[in-house]
Amino acid sequence: MAAPKRKNKFIKTKPKTGLAPGSPVFTGDRKMDQIELNLICYCPDGANEYQNLALSRCFELLLINSHNHICWLNVDGLHDTDLIQSICNHLQVHRLSMEDILNVGQRPKMDEHGEYIHFVLNMLTMNAGELGVSEEQISLLQKGKVVLSFQEKAGDVFDGVRNRIREGRGTIRQRGGDYLVYSLLDAVVDHYFVVMERLGERFEEIESALMEKPDKHLLSQIHLLRRESLGLRRAVYPLREAVGRFEKLEEPMVNKSSQMYIRDLYDHIIQVIDGIEVFREMANGMLDLYMNSMSQRMNEIMKVLTIIATIFIPLTFVAGIYGMNFTYMPELEYPYAYFLVLGIMGIAVLGMLWFFKRKGWM
Amino acid sequence: MAAPKRKNKFIKTKPKTGLAPGSPVFTGDRKMDQIELNLICYCPDGANEYQNLALSRCFELLLINSHNHICWLNVDGLHDTDLIQSICNHLQVHRLSMEDILNVGQRPKMDEHGEYIHFVLNMLTMNAGELGVSEEQISLLQKGKVVLSFQEKAGDVFDGVRNRIREGRGTIRQRGGDYLVYSLLDAVVDHYFVVMERLGERFEEIESALMEKPDKHLLSQIHLLRRESLGLRRAVYPLREAVGRFEKLEEPMVNKSSQMYIRDLYDHIIQVIDGIEVFREMANGMLDLYMNSMSQRMNEIMKVLTIIATIFIPLTFVAGIYGMNFTYMPELEYPYAYFLVLGIMGIAVLGMLWFFKRKGWM
Amino acid sequence: MAAPKRKNKFIKTKPKTGLAPGSPVFTGDRKMDQIELNLICYCPDGANEYQNLALSRCFELLLINSHNHICWLNVDGLHDTDLIQSICNHLQVHRLSMEDILNVGQRPKMDEHGEYIHFVLNMLTMNAGELGVSEEQISLLQKGKVVLSFQEKAGDVFDGVRNRIREGRGTIRQRGGDYLVYSLLDAVVDHYFVVMERLGERFEEIESALMEKPDKHLLSQIHLLRRESLGLRRAVYPLREAVGRFEKLEEPMVNKSSQMYIRDLYDHIIQVIDGIEVFREMANGMLDLYMNSMSQRMNEIMKVLTIIATIFIPLTFVAGIYGMNFTYMPELEYPYAYFLVLGIMGIAVLGMLWFFKRKGWM
Amino acid sequence: MAAPKRKNKFIKTKPKTGLAPGSPVFTGDRKMDQIELNLICYCPDGANEYQNLALSRCFELLLINSHNHICWLNVDGLHDTDLIQSICNHLQVHRLSMEDILNVGQRPKMDEHGEYIHFVLNMLTMNAGELGVSEEQISLLQKGKVVLSFQEKAGDVFDGVRNRIREGRGTIRQRGGDYLVYSLLDAVVDHYFVVMERLGERFEEIESALMEKPDKHLLSQIHLLRRESLGLRRAVYPLREAVGRFEKLEEPMVNKSSQMYIRDLYDHIIQVIDGIEVFREMANGMLDLYMNSMSQRMNEIMKVLTIIATIFIPLTFVAGIYGMNFTYMPELEYPYAYFLVLGIMGIAVLGMLWFFKRKGWM
Amino acid sequence: MAAPKRKNKFIKTKPKTGLAPGSPVFTGDRKMDQIELNLICYCPDGANEYQNLALSRCFELLLINSHNHICWLNVDGLHDTDLIQSICNHLQVHRLSMEDILNVGQRPKMDEHGEYIHFVLNMLTMNAGELGVSEEQISLLQKGKVVLSFQEKAGDVFDGVRNRIREGRGTIRQRGGDYLVYSLLDAVVDHYFVVMERLGERFEEIESALMEKPDKHLLSQIHLLRRESLGLRRAVYPLREAVGRFEKLEEPMVNKSSQMYIRDLYDHIIQVIDGIEVFREMANGMLDLYMNSMSQRMNEIMKVLTIIATIFIPLTFVAGIYGMNFTYMPELEYPYAYFLVLGIMGIAVLGMLWFFKRKGWM
Repeated sequence: MAAPKRKNKFIKTKPKTGLAPGSPVFTGDRKMDQIELNLICYCPDGANEYQNLALSRCFELLLINSHNHICWLNVDGLHDTDLIQSICNHLQVHRLSMEDILNVGQRPKMDEHGEYIHFVLNMLTMNAGELGVSEEQISLLQKGKVVLSFQEKAGDVFDGVRNRIREGRGTIRQRGGDYLVYSLLDAVVDHYFVVMERLGERFEEIESALMEKPDKHLLSQIHLLRRESLGLRRAVYPLREAVGRFEKLEEPMVNKSSQMYIRDLYDHIIQVIDGIEVFREMANGMLDLYMNSMSQRMNEIMKVLTIIATIFIPLTFVAGIYGMNFTYMPELEYPYAYFLVLGIMGIAVLGMLWFFKRKGWM
Repeated sequence: MAAPKRKNKFIKTKPKTGLAPGSPVFTGDRKMDQIELNLICYCPDGANEYQNLALSRCFELLLINSHNHICWLNVDGLHDTDLIQSICNHLQVHRLSMEDILNVGQRPKMDEHGEYIHFVLNMLTMNAGELGVSEEQISLLQKGKVVLSFQEKAGDVFDGVRNRIREGRGTIRQRGGDYLVYSLLDAVVDHYFVVMERLGERFEEIESALMEKPDKHLLSQIHLLRRESLGLRRAVYPLREAVGRFEKLEEPMVNKSSQMYIRDLYDHIIQVIDGIEVFREMANGMLDLYMNSMSQRMNEIMKVLTIIATIFIPLTFVAGIYGMNFTYMPELEYPYAYFLVLGIMGIAVLGMLWFFKRKGWM
Repeated sequence: MAAPKRKNKFIKTKPKTGLAPGSPVFTGDRKMDQIELNLICYCPDGANEYQNLALSRCFELLLINSHNHICWLNVDGLHDTDLIQSICNHLQVHRLSMEDILNVGQRPKMDEHGEYIHFVLNMLTMNAGELGVSEEQISLLQKGKVVLSFQEKAGDVFDGVRNRIREGRGTIRQRGGDYLVYSLLDAVVDHYFVVMERLGERFEEIESALMEKPDKHLLSQIHLLRRESLGLRRAVYPLREAVGRFEKLEEPMVNKSSQMYIRDLYDHIIQVIDGIEVFREMANGMLDLYMNSMSQRMNEIMKVLTIIATIFIPLTFVAGIYGMNFTYMPELEYPYAYFLVLGIMGIAVLGMLWFFKRKGWM
Repeated sequence: MAAPKRKNKFIKTKPKTGLAPGSPVFTGDRKMDQIELNLICYCPDGANEYQNLALSRCFELLLINSHNHICWLNVDGLHDTDLIQSICNHLQVHRLSMEDILNVGQRPKMDEHGEYIHFVLNMLTMNAGELGVSEEQISLLQKGKVVLSFQEKAGDVFDGVRNRIREGRGTIRQRGGDYLVYSLLDAVVDHYFVVMERLGERFEEIESALMEKPDKHLLSQIHLLRRESLGLRRAVYPLREAVGRFEKLEEPMVNKSSQMYIRDLYDHIIQVIDGIEVFREMANGMLDLYMNSMSQRMNEIMKVLTIIATIFIPLTFVAGIYGMNFTYMPELEYPYAYFLVLGIMGIAVLGMLWFFKRKGWM
Repeated sequence: MAAPKRKNKFIKTKPKTGLAPGSPVFTGDRKMDQIELNLICYCPDGANEYQNLALSRCFELLLINSHNHICWLNVDGLHDTDLIQSICNHLQVHRLSMEDILNVGQRPKMDEHGEYIHFVLNMLTMNAGELGVSEEQISLLQKGKVVLSFQEKAGDVFDGVRNRIREGRGTIRQRGGDYLVYSLLDAVVDHYFVVMERLGERFEEIESALMEKPDKHLLSQIHLLRRESLGLRRAVYPLREAVGRFEKLEEPMVNKSSQMYIRDLYDHIIQVIDGIEVFREMANGMLDLYMNSMSQRMNEIMKVLTIIATIFIPLTFVAGIYGMNFTYMPELEYPYAYFLVLGIMGIAVLGMLWFFKRKGWM
């Protein structure tokens, strides 16, 4: 598997120009060898997990379980277009939804297509090391008791949800598919907080470094942090609208008892947005601070230069005068002229120092 | 009790990633040894106060009083999750509300949960000394005649309300639980004015200092003030929306006669917001002023340098010429050449001074 | 009477923390010795004026006249809380309105309280001399045929209205209390135009001074003008909303024939707001201009310095070379070496001048 | 006739403070000797024009024609308040409308007064020469088949409309008074495009001049252009709202077949607004460019200074050393010391040049 | 055919001042020799293409096919006003629509005219080479089964749609005229992505160049990119509104099954708008970075100058002192005075270096 090429991070594209709308083409980088299908079926009484299923076995299990169990089918990997297409066709998913699943780099959104709802959103995770935030597009489809989640690669933020299902903690097993979708969304949004906290820490670090000693490396760090918080913003702002519309869905799509939870999720998203706005304010404040520190330092440097030059240039001129070789320069002959000149120079220096003091330059 | 660690002040987090929604976990710092329960029960005829109640006694008193008294139970301290949970369960508070009470660092909001309403807001108090503004999250729950208030630690801004209840001043004892909630909100918002006034004074001080003599310490002070007014903004903006929704509640949640008061409270919040906007304008204006003063001073410094250099560098060159040791330099022999050269130099200086005058540099 | 202390002008406060809502406390400075009550009663047939009334006489006159006359009671001075309270109680004014009347520093607003409407607004007048704009809070209350106006001190902008009533000019005597309220509002807004015009003149003066010769005093003048237009903005923006709601009131509060006038008033307020926005644009434009002029001048200064230094420093070095005292410096002996060196220096100067010309520095 | 004094261009005033609302006072400058009344009456079959009518004759013609002709009465000049008042009274125009007609410097707006509609708008024309844009307030009144237009002086942008009426081109003679009003509005808005195009050309000129060689004259030109586009903005933004409301009028005020044309006009206004926004962006972009070019040039100047100073100041010092007159300076005696020193200096120069190269300063 | 003159790119004009509204005048540049008419008629069973039709033959074919085929007539070239007029009249297109077709430089919009809908939009294509983005106005008219597309010149982005019709791929042949309009809009919007991607690449290039080494050429490149993204913005923002209204049309204008596709198109437009906003943020961020880098470099340059000057100017002064020719200067006679002076100078240099180190200048 080739090294994934650096993706143009901010301008997401839809490069399938010329194809019919709804054509299923995967637009991302292949990030894993083989697509993995994992199914969890649960009811209040218990939960069964099936890992690495073959497609046919998967359909079979869905058929058996989906009338009295909530079935969550998680698909890791999107490069096998045919397989994705079979799953979508099996569940009568509209071709436009199919396109959105495969076309990574979408804007987060929520679509209602008659019997099912479809969420597209971005999962953000902090990279290990200092490499910033990485994005992965996730699609969530709920059709009655069946919930599908599509991810670009294995590894996600849903382990908390899985454990709650396995161990029957919370009320998740008592509730429907809409609550599962909510739980998955909530897990993703919880991770935005983690990302935001890390970015916040770095902002604070840079800020205190800036207050102590402005340095040019800080500048590009601020720039990079700003870019990264742009990424967070692009993930969160559209999600607010999507979750807002999710909350307003009515029975039977969304259970009345779930709405309060979705409202809570919505509040969390607003909180992330508030945090992003604070980042923006902070970054601007820091840039102002930096700019001003720079001109501060410039002033300081210039003051030193000016003081030195203003003191010594005139004195050097005087010394130059008496270094001239004119035949007739009467002062040169006076016995104490030399000391007199030195004395006058000393007085001039004192006078200038007094002048600088008064100007507040020293 | 350990010294409270410095909290990341601007980016509030929800660090319970992975837990089920509604899990009651306290996310703040333990700020007192033991949770204190204080109950005030009042009716138009009088008021009884019970301090430092045990939980069981507290429930008992609520049971006795809550049908013909307004009962205000104030809880100081949130670290004992079980105790908080018992109170909430006793009053059939939803688990999401319970989570919000414990999860400090929330965005201010107002939730309606069927029979009760729940306010989350931030109490701001000026620290003694110069240490800025400190925040404390407060939850207010009203369910019929019972009002709960949860605080992170003892000490609050509600003494005015308590006194009015004790002494029967105003109309508070004639009114219902909604009016008590309003009174508590009003006390918190009144304190925003105090905070705003102090910030305003410091802004004005910095501004007049800036007009007199721009100094680099002012810059970081402006930056800090801006950050603090950010904190005020984060407390007030969401509260506006919350109080706006509170005002729109109908009977029996909110009494018709209370609505006018809530509208008044809303106006006060708008007034705080106006003040914050003025701060922002002022801070920007001051930064502009500072920046411009800096370049002003730079110009002044450069002018001095340029004048000195422009006068003396050419003269020094002339002196250098006649300090050369060429065998044949006819001018050197002329008897009055020295004085002639000095005279020419003097004229050149006058000419340059005239030039600088004309340029407006002196 | 003591000199009024300088008021914190931008951050208006509500310093009565801890009191019950609706407590009548005057928060301003006492600006006159004694409260004055003046009453004008008019009907289409004529108008009677009563000045400096005692309170009891005033109530008596209101009782007699208020069924077939429009009665306008103007109260100058707010420091006598009891007197204000008696008037309000006599007319059954809500305690929150009473608080708003006394609590100067309010945000302009319009409240409907059942039978009466209550306007709070700021009257702006230009100070004599150069001392800027002064504000005074005015409350207007209309209850049927009775109109109350409360001012902080004697002296107002209502003389035009009084004269029209006295002389029966216009249609004011034919119309109701709502039209009187409109007329008073209109008089206040007309004065905003006067203030705006003066500010505008000063903006234009500063701008043309800036175009001619940027000066550092202009900078703080721009800053001060900006602050003053902030004050205008704070008076006008909330008033727009208040008048907008006034226009939308229905009979019997506002007569149908008055609505067109109120709409006209609303248009005038919008016009003031437009003007304020223009001020803001102008101030920003001027700051840009100033900043750029500063760097312009800096460049000019630096150019002079650089030209002088670049020409003379190398020449001085050459002169220095031939001022060295080495025993063996063959050039020194050549008969025309001196003139040769001078010639070379001259050529070097010409070359540099050509270089500066080409760079566009001269 | 006296030379018109320079008008405060941006802050329009309403200086009639103290008069009753609706008082007819002309607030502009008298721009022509005598008011001219021109009447055009037309029906699908033909058109009659009457120029320089006396007032009585004018009323007579209106009486005869207005039941089966569209009558367009154009009034040039507003200084004769009595005449304007007679016309308005004859047509039962409300006194507030009359005030708006006379009170030039109004914000563009559209008022519905029962039977008639009233437009106030600004006609912009480019001055001959370089003197910028000039404004003239125009009022359009339509009452059934009678359309009045009031202008401050003779000369307008309506000749195209007149010609279409005279020659029966287009559908104007087949349509009603609302279409005539539309046509006049359209003619004014068409001229905004002309103004915008000219401003746009000047923006482009300045921009390309700026890309080639930033010059300080460009700065004040940008500033002036910005101001002029402010004037365009003030004319167009309120007009959008006015025309939007015009479009929404129903029969019999506005014919159904005219609405499509008004919608088209509305689109044109939006297009002008778009253009103004582009101007604003361009002006800001150009200011950034200018600022940056300035610091660019400063850097360049400083580099030259620094290079020269850094090379020659140390060398001059060395020359100074060997120009000292100490009795015992052994180096001076060495036969080739002079050339050695020169050589070392040469090497030092080369070293510094290499250093500057590496720093990217040359 | 003459070389097309450079068009004023940002300020689009409507230069037909004085004509009747709805006058068909072509306002663009003639871009091809002869207008070309191409017709595609298709039904689910097949598709027929007719190229370079004569007008009469074209009408004939429309007559035959339009009851059971979707007929797409594409018109390349707009300079032949009569021909365009005949087509429009044949299909009973309103004269205002005709004007919009011919009047290139329109703002994108969607008009409903009774039986037909009319889209005006801009097709953007990247020029070969580095010459930026070129715009072409396109009009789409749908009236039942007939769809007209008008372009300024041959060559478009619709080949994908043509191929899908020819080969029967996708569902296009099964659907109605509204779906064809959608497909054409979608093809145009797809090309916006291409343009955006290219602009994005150039932004990223410039940004990384800026992070490595700020250069003054980058500045004007940022400026140009900003201008080009302005063009994209002007094409896309109004289109959003137009497509939003298209989506809301009801049967029979737009088929219910097409609405989901139009919603998808709408999402794509929002995605382009998001990208444009990111461009704006990036450009601003880059300008900040550039500005700061500039002052950074200035500081660096000034530091070098100051260090050199501060070290050598005082030393040169000392050397100047001992170069004076006073008769009586006792130090000159001391045997090791020279070395002493050199030593003191050396120590001074070390002291200054230590000072600069401490200041952080080295």
